[in-house]
Amino acid sequence: MKPITLDTITQAVINHGDGGKTHPRLYEIYTSLVKHLHAFVREVNLTEPELQQGRDFLNRVSRHTQFIPDGEMQVLTDLLGISELVLLLQDTIGKATESNLEGPLYIPNAPERQIGDRIGVDVEGEALFLSGRVLDVNGQAIANALIEVWQPNSQGLYDIFDPSQPAGNFRGQFHTDRDGNYRFETVVPSGYDVPADGPCGEVLRLLGRHTWRAAHIHFKLSATGYLPLTTQVFIEGAPQLDADTTFAVRTNILKLQKHESADAKAQHQPSHTAEFDFVLKPIEAAK
Amino acid sequence: MKPITLDTITQAVINHGDGGKTHPRLYEIYTSLVKHLHAFVREVNLTEPELQQGRDFLNRVSRHTQFIPDGEMQVLTDLLGISELVLLLQDTIGKATESNLEGPLYIPNAPERQIGDRIGVDVEGEALFLSGRVLDVNGQAIANALIEVWQPNSQGLYDIFDPSQPAGNFRGQFHTDRDGNYRFETVVPSGYDVPADGPCGEVLRLLGRHTWRAAHIHFKLSATGYLPLTTQVFIEGAPQLDADTTFAVRTNILKLQKHESADAKAQHQPSHTAEFDFVLKPIEAAK
Repeated sequence: MKPITLDTITQAVINHGDGGKTHPRLYEIYTSLVKHLHAFVREVNLTEPELQQGRDFLNRVSRHTQFIPDGEMQVLTDLLGISELVLLLQDTIGKATESNLEGPLYIPNAPERQIGDRIGVDVEGEALFLSGRVLDVNGQAIANALIEVWQPNSQGLYDIFDPSQPAGNFRGQFHTDRDGNYRFETVVPSGYDVPADGPCGEVLRLLGRHTWRAAHIHFKLSATGYLPLTTQVFIEGAPQLDADTTFAVRTNILKLQKHESADAKAQHQPSHTAEFDFVLKPIEAAK
Repeated sequence: MKPITLDTITQAVINHGDGGKTHPRLYEIYTSLVKHLHAFVREVNLTEPELQQGRDFLNRVSRHTQFIPDGEMQVLTDLLGISELVLLLQDTIGKATESNLEGPLYIPNAPERQIGDRIGVDVEGEALFLSGRVLDVNGQAIANALIEVWQPNSQGLYDIFDPSQPAGNFRGQFHTDRDGNYRFETVVPSGYDVPADGPCGEVLRLLGRHTWRAAHIHFKLSATGYLPLTTQVFIEGAPQLDADTTFAVRTNILKLQKHESADAKAQHQPSHTAEFDFVLKPIEAAK
């Protein structure tokens, strides 16, 4: 009989199974998870009360009532950088636009817009005229691609959290023209604090971590023959661009060109223009 | 601006906090957990659907209704060997009896027994006369130590799961005499399968893992001036002693001496004797 000791327990757990005969991929994940979780427990010399706090924390995360079902477990993996790490690992085609977290605020069937439309009402915000093209990895235009967009207003508020905004404000869907062009008017969004009233928020406060999301616009793109893309585009120079709480700021940076209002007396806000091209992967790339 | 990449994301997550100013220990745990979880995600190249399955699994574990509240999350850490690893890390005083998992089947205020009492009814089981002493780490007897014992019967069933057993069957509490002695009669317990009707059981089946617990007797000891001890004592030669599903089989092995019944005609079962001494740590050891 081989007793369980500090030296044998990790391998004993890994060996306690059929070596992947039933489900090779699950066994691979299990083996690696056990190895790394045990290394963590050893490294910090985790105590029984701390392990119990960990169990309690996960139970509270699962049971925390959020505005979306199971939202707090998603938030947990976002805050640990795991959600973004998984996306980084999958983004292997150099030329395509990086994917990013969908987040919980996407709503299907957003208002249909025409090219050039303004997508929301915000009297205080600075206008942003955004345009660009949807392309394939060879630089060829993709006509009739569906673009869905959603963003907060200039105060960092999404329509669904702000009764003063009409439903569907700063949301929209439209199609590229035959040359792959899109163009719409919006406002420069502001960043915002992720709600932190649950167990994840409690831990963040004890870590001295803020919950700021750098200002961004969400996009979802789909076109026949191409892999759908969900991504975020960040505003250059926005606060905490270096320290977004979901670690989502990569290379999708929107460079704004500022235009002062010609009519200073009327106290018009400055407006901005920006261009951003999206590049989609062909479906074959997934095979 | 430093964009998040595969090379920077792990350190970015660790740096996203106050470096432990608010809560040094939590920050230490967080730092190590992030490092090891990211290493796991990278090693297996975890995909988005797999991450979502992981989130769903943890939510189901938390919400699975068990006979004890929060039981499934406890089961999860037991099956991953994490609960036992934490105990192994804490058992640093060489001479004291090893601690072990309490498990979910302890009930306080077990029937009070006198030295020598039999602690349960089981007509089919083979009798076990168990005796020994409770000692300090210098080998001195500890008088009046409280010993609580609980175990399944010869069929591997605990009283609370088996309507045919009277309440409190194979449970008891008694005190050592002035020389630290204890002595009681019981049956040789059988091992058993841990109930696996929840999400943890589903995963175990996909891993080809059984849920067998090698035959054992649970003990809780307490005495003034000593650290309380919760432990398990395993039956030498029992099935799956090498592969207990909670990885709890260490050095607490009970060597049985078998005694054939003198009256073979009456079909009496053989009986067994065994000795086991418990050694408690002084409270000062915890400081």
